Amino acid sequence: MAREEGKLDDIRAVLGNDEAIEAYREGKPFPDGAIIARIAWSCDSSETNNKAFGRPQSFVAGTPKNGVQFMVKDSRKYASTGGWGYAHFDDGKPADDMVMNACFPCHRAIKDRDYVFTDYAR
Amino acid sequence: MAREEGKLDDIRAVLGNDEAIEAYREGKPFPDGAIIARIAWSCDSSETNNKAFGRPQSFVAGTPKNGVQFMVKDSRKYASTGGWGYAHFDDGKPADDMVMNACFPCHRAIKDRDYVFTDYAR
Repeated sequence: MAREEGKLDDIRAVLGNDEAIEAYREGKPFPDGAIIARIAWSCDSSETNNKAFGRPQSFVAGTPKNGVQFMVKDSRKYASTGGWGYAHFDDGKPADDMVMNACFPCHRAIKDRDYVFTDYAR
Repeated sequence: MAREEGKLDDIRAVLGNDEAIEAYREGKPFPDGAIIARIAWSCDSSETNNKAFGRPQSFVAGTPKNGVQFMVKDSRKYASTGGWGYAHFDDGKPADDMVMNACFPCHRAIKDRDYVFTDYAR
């Protein structure tokens, strides 16, 4: 779970399939077949909460934002991008190359984390 | 999902059992048996992300914080508190009366929402 600032400006959750979660929990490398998903919403000030508490209190998930993203581990198929394939969907439609070309340049900076930004939240 | 400021200072997720989620999705009143759970973590600036992006970028879920909370709907058993029972656990231990007495005074302010702060995130 995270709050992203800057251009992203969202609140988000990162989910994994069984292979991804098992690797996270056991501190092992992500195996082929691991899938990580990212969903996000606008991060909206909550009038309901702020009114009930009598002060600025809460920012809550609003409307879906910034599409849905996936990382899929397949060390042979995606060898040129560190063993991970990247996907981004807006309203169910896959993003174009311009969007996709922006994935690996940032993830490449964290090769020592197997290209995954998100830590496991216990 | 929410970012709470002030004394709470956390990032949190709210989950529901099937009865609660069905009521949320269909916009119906929460039936007896509905359970809502709240988990939370410290909201930490992410050095990893900020370094990769070259700017302040991310606040991420850190260590568990502010215990685990539940609301359980039983309109007869909990009639005196709007039909909801409240629970709070720190490290698996139920909170004392002083903590518990603080639940309903705030939730009471939102009777028109059936005492539930969280909206369903689609």
